[in-house]
Amino acid sequence: VSGLGGTNPQTDRPLSGTALFDAPRIALEAVTPSVDNGRFPARGLVGHDIEIGVDIICDGHDVLAGVVLWRTAASTEWTETRLALQGNDRWTAYIPITQMGLHYFTVEAWLDVYASICLQMTKKHAAGQSVALELQEATDLVREASERSGALALHELLVRLSHADEAEQRDLLTDDGTARLMQQYDPRAFRVRHTPELVIDAERQAASFASWYEIFPRSQSPDGDRHGTFTDVIARLPAVRDMGFDVLYLPPIHPIGRTNRKGRNNTLVAGPDDPGSPYAIGGAEGGHDAVHPELGTLEEFRALCAAALEHGLEIALDFAIQCSPDHPWLREHPEWFNWRPDGSIQYAENPPKRYEDIVNVAFYAKGAVPSLWIALRDVVQFWVTQGVRIFRVDNPHTKPLPFWEWMIADIRSRDPGVIFLSEAFTRPKMMYRLAKIGFTQSYTYFTWRNTAREMREYMVELTTQPPKDFFRPNFFVNTPDINPIFLHDSGRPGFLLRAALAATLSGLWGVYNGFEVCDSKALHGREEYLDSEKYQLRKWDLAQPGNIVDEITKLNRIRRENPALQSHLGIRFVETDNPHVLCYVKTSPDQSNAVLVAVSFDPHGVQDCTIDIWPALFGLPEGTQMVMQDLMLDQTTIFELGLNRLSLDPNFMPFAIWRARRSESP
Amino acid sequence: VSGLGGTNPQTDRPLSGTALFDAPRIALEAVTPSVDNGRFPARGLVGHDIEIGVDIICDGHDVLAGVVLWRTAASTEWTETRLALQGNDRWTAYIPITQMGLHYFTVEAWLDVYASICLQMTKKHAAGQSVALELQEATDLVREASERSGALALHELLVRLSHADEAEQRDLLTDDGTARLMQQYDPRAFRVRHTPELVIDAERQAASFASWYEIFPRSQSPDGDRHGTFTDVIARLPAVRDMGFDVLYLPPIHPIGRTNRKGRNNTLVAGPDDPGSPYAIGGAEGGHDAVHPELGTLEEFRALCAAALEHGLEIALDFAIQCSPDHPWLREHPEWFNWRPDGSIQYAENPPKRYEDIVNVAFYAKGAVPSLWIALRDVVQFWVTQGVRIFRVDNPHTKPLPFWEWMIADIRSRDPGVIFLSEAFTRPKMMYRLAKIGFTQSYTYFTWRNTAREMREYMVELTTQPPKDFFRPNFFVNTPDINPIFLHDSGRPGFLLRAALAATLSGLWGVYNGFEVCDSKALHGREEYLDSEKYQLRKWDLAQPGNIVDEITKLNRIRRENPALQSHLGIRFVETDNPHVLCYVKTSPDQSNAVLVAVSFDPHGVQDCTIDIWPALFGLPEGTQMVMQDLMLDQTTIFELGLNRLSLDPNFMPFAIWRARRSESP
Repeated sequence: VSGLGGTNPQTDRPLSGTALFDAPRIALEAVTPSVDNGRFPARGLVGHDIEIGVDIICDGHDVLAGVVLWRTAASTEWTETRLALQGNDRWTAYIPITQMGLHYFTVEAWLDVYASICLQMTKKHAAGQSVALELQEATDLVREASERSGALALHELLVRLSHADEAEQRDLLTDDGTARLMQQYDPRAFRVRHTPELVIDAERQAASFASWYEIFPRSQSPDGDRHGTFTDVIARLPAVRDMGFDVLYLPPIHPIGRTNRKGRNNTLVAGPDDPGSPYAIGGAEGGHDAVHPELGTLEEFRALCAAALEHGLEIALDFAIQCSPDHPWLREHPEWFNWRPDGSIQYAENPPKRYEDIVNVAFYAKGAVPSLWIALRDVVQFWVTQGVRIFRVDNPHTKPLPFWEWMIADIRSRDPGVIFLSEAFTRPKMMYRLAKIGFTQSYTYFTWRNTAREMREYMVELTTQPPKDFFRPNFFVNTPDINPIFLHDSGRPGFLLRAALAATLSGLWGVYNGFEVCDSKALHGREEYLDSEKYQLRKWDLAQPGNIVDEITKLNRIRRENPALQSHLGIRFVETDNPHVLCYVKTSPDQSNAVLVAVSFDPHGVQDCTIDIWPALFGLPEGTQMVMQDLMLDQTTIFELGLNRLSLDPNFMPFAIWRARRSESP
Repeated sequence: VSGLGGTNPQTDRPLSGTALFDAPRIALEAVTPSVDNGRFPARGLVGHDIEIGVDIICDGHDVLAGVVLWRTAASTEWTETRLALQGNDRWTAYIPITQMGLHYFTVEAWLDVYASICLQMTKKHAAGQSVALELQEATDLVREASERSGALALHELLVRLSHADEAEQRDLLTDDGTARLMQQYDPRAFRVRHTPELVIDAERQAASFASWYEIFPRSQSPDGDRHGTFTDVIARLPAVRDMGFDVLYLPPIHPIGRTNRKGRNNTLVAGPDDPGSPYAIGGAEGGHDAVHPELGTLEEFRALCAAALEHGLEIALDFAIQCSPDHPWLREHPEWFNWRPDGSIQYAENPPKRYEDIVNVAFYAKGAVPSLWIALRDVVQFWVTQGVRIFRVDNPHTKPLPFWEWMIADIRSRDPGVIFLSEAFTRPKMMYRLAKIGFTQSYTYFTWRNTAREMREYMVELTTQPPKDFFRPNFFVNTPDINPIFLHDSGRPGFLLRAALAATLSGLWGVYNGFEVCDSKALHGREEYLDSEKYQLRKWDLAQPGNIVDEITKLNRIRRENPALQSHLGIRFVETDNPHVLCYVKTSPDQSNAVLVAVSFDPHGVQDCTIDIWPALFGLPEGTQMVMQDLMLDQTTIFELGLNRLSLDPNFMPFAIWRARRSESP
């Protein structure tokens, strides 16, 4: 046909006529969850259904229909789940996640010709118009379906129709059973399927809900005078578990280098008894797959892992790739490092700073690809074999992205339950990219969000913008590297309010020991702790007066009992009239659990505010009588609907947590 | 190598080890503009540079570099434009658009090894550290580049370096000229290029900036007693142009059917002299490529198009696909229509309503693909050949999306200056989809956004969310189908404020005649005009007292003189303390023109408000002394920086428009 498209002179994309005439009539848009158009998986969790959404757009007013098609990676068979129209061209369905690993899904839509005719018939009948033609058209479709499928039920329907009068025919053709039957044999006119298939990576619960506690094993001897051991850590497990923590995280446990070893408080020269930084990994005793002899043996470490499991705890290990100059790899694999023109090794440096106690491996040095990458993967696999399934990864943003993507997928191909926490304190896009390529969870900017407004903005970013599909924040209230400035002069109330924020805003929160005794002694007023355990042994008295062990214990118990607090998602902020108070409702995915939290950001003075309470905040119908149970004080309050006045006294409790229920259900 | 990836048992995506070791080190994300990941073009405009943006993400702290690669569809050669880092991993560059049609672009990034060494050298030197090794490494790179390229300038640089002392070497290696030279011969380590290539579709100015005026030619006879003609329309051109309009839009000009013709005010039975609805297209005199004989001949229509151009106006025609039962196609091509089981034709109906004066073609009927599609394309091409380059398309959302995508691309492959306005008053996602597949501009929800808050939310959606890249709103203040309820009792002030909103919020606005004399007489209080021209001839006295011709004329002049008002983009809302006043600043893309607008949404009472004026609102540096010129009153005001009090009196002028300038530049 002349003029039937051909090649558009304005473009090198051929506008092939016939191909375009065959182009899908129905458009599918905004399929969710989708991370970078399927390049990366969205995150899922075993036991939690995932909502799939799609915009289905078609000309005219015909009835549309659609399904989600989904399968696990191990299966080649699709399962279909029917989509439901939510309005404004948006359709959704839930698919179940019952096992770890990758799941694939896509969506399919079509025009439901039979339903379209029935709808027309019903409308015209209601308007008193004749539907004789619609009856005939609908019956013709039943006949076609019967002939195509040979289905007995359709044959029986045709027989009944042939004996029915017009009113009976109308009832028969438009009843729900017939609708379902015709759906089953629907030839799916104008069927279209979304490409590409999208991916969900499902993990175990600890990926998303866990309370972390961090200690340096070497500080765990009972009297603090000798070097602590794995066996000392075992003795500490009951206390850690009693506080309600799930994960016990240990900084590197490997031999520590001697060359250029750092002294106390990060001084450049170590004394003869200084233990050095455990991040200067490797010495004569071995490298990343060895255990620092003063901590014990590999066998004792395995015993620690087993004992932790018996206490309901998991051990998380540090994976820090840098090497001390004494690491065996420098001798055995000089091709894995960068060397200067004078034959010296390239130390880590960020002028004017030099870090001469460590050297970085060179991932792209000649001779390092792939042998270095494989060796590093083997290090992780070695510790997995010893019983470790959670890794906190040191500074992943200074190592190549393809390394992480390959390594994490490789490890998880054997055990999809292995979890990686990214310690990337860097710009946001790198943090998010690391989450996309496989890190289960990430440290965050939490410790630097110190006003209610900043915290709210950060939570809105994490829970309503693209990161919601792939980034899981782990809110550490402090770390050995971060002694938050906010806590330097906040006193005990500051520790309480920061604990409450972390424990209620995110499913993942973490505490580095010392926080529970409100330690904030700083080196030179900076974010660094004085006498940091990174460079020396410390003795901790965690039962000293003023500790907040009871409050932390209670927070962890409340988290365990309230699914609404087991994720950062499902949050809704409640307006208050006081900028120093942050108030929010969290609800569980199934809406069965709802919690209201109010936190004052002021550790020094009483803060009052008014909040407006109405049932819809908690997913409850208008007019529901509600009971609010104060979970910290274990007392029940009848909140009036409407405006309520709160007062948060830092010297009593700078926050409050209520569980909202219908008053009739105790 | 054992364990080197292989196939992941959890997935059917092979984690081929070596492929992943070769995966790009540098990640490119969020390349903009991008519509559905390159499936559709973003919109461009001849004469307007387009900003390209990308997130470039890489491990470590090395210096990165990148370019935009772009070309027109006619060219196979890429042009490179260097990207500049804006902060937070975001890089941008502008590319020029000098011709209509498709443009392709992508981005490329790499690690600038030479710049990284120079940066390290500069920092270490500043810190008083030795840079001997860095000098040697940088010189080695110059030598490599020289050997690789044979470039004379590099050879000369090496000679100069060999005679220089250390300080001179440092200066030579780090100066700007050397940086540029080394950039030119940069081997682009870890080079990565974004896929897919993305697309921009560039149009002429009228696609984005034009003032539309709509008339029914049949009502244009001077005395109103006889049927108007194309020649009568020619006589009206000076008046339309004097009001400052650019496009004169005519409803369908084709023969009108007689079967089931509609009477006055949409009655079901037409009187013998009733002219019928011009949307019931086709009769004995011809179909979509014929002219209604009472309007004149095809030759006279061509004369109108030519006369319009001479007056600086363009004629826009309606493209309405439905047919009257008398359309020749029903006889000639019964295969293009739907027929019922009783042999009758399927009329348009939306129960309980029936539209028996029109039948719709059936795009997917057997025998309609592709012959019907081609026939419709030929209709549009016919009118292009007669001199029409702008089409207003009636109800495109009830015709298949692939038809539009093919047809518009086909027409624009011969003349990329042809413009299509979508009249899709439907759900938002369909409106946006039509824009994506090729419609240049679209009618909008403007007429139903009657509070300052609603209007602001709508503008935020159009200018900051994905539609900003592909959807151009045409703000009609009224149409023959929409007699806005808001105007029924607003009086003249309502017409003024709605005109001001449309003319200043969007680059495209439209007026259907009668608006300028504040006509709002409605049929039964509905949105329908009383005695609508759709069904009868009307006589208009557009100079009657109370008309707003002067104000419309002034608005169009202000639009022409202020590039800031020539697009809906570039808007920033200014907070006020009065919810009835909408206040906004618009700036031109190059920031050289800035306009402040305040509009009261209350046509009945005086509204006062306070607005906060500061130079950054207008893209000016802090502390700039500013002059505000009132463009409606032609008077200059010195605004105080800070809070200013405004009063908008509907009986004087319910809006104000100021141009902001530095006070020193008159």
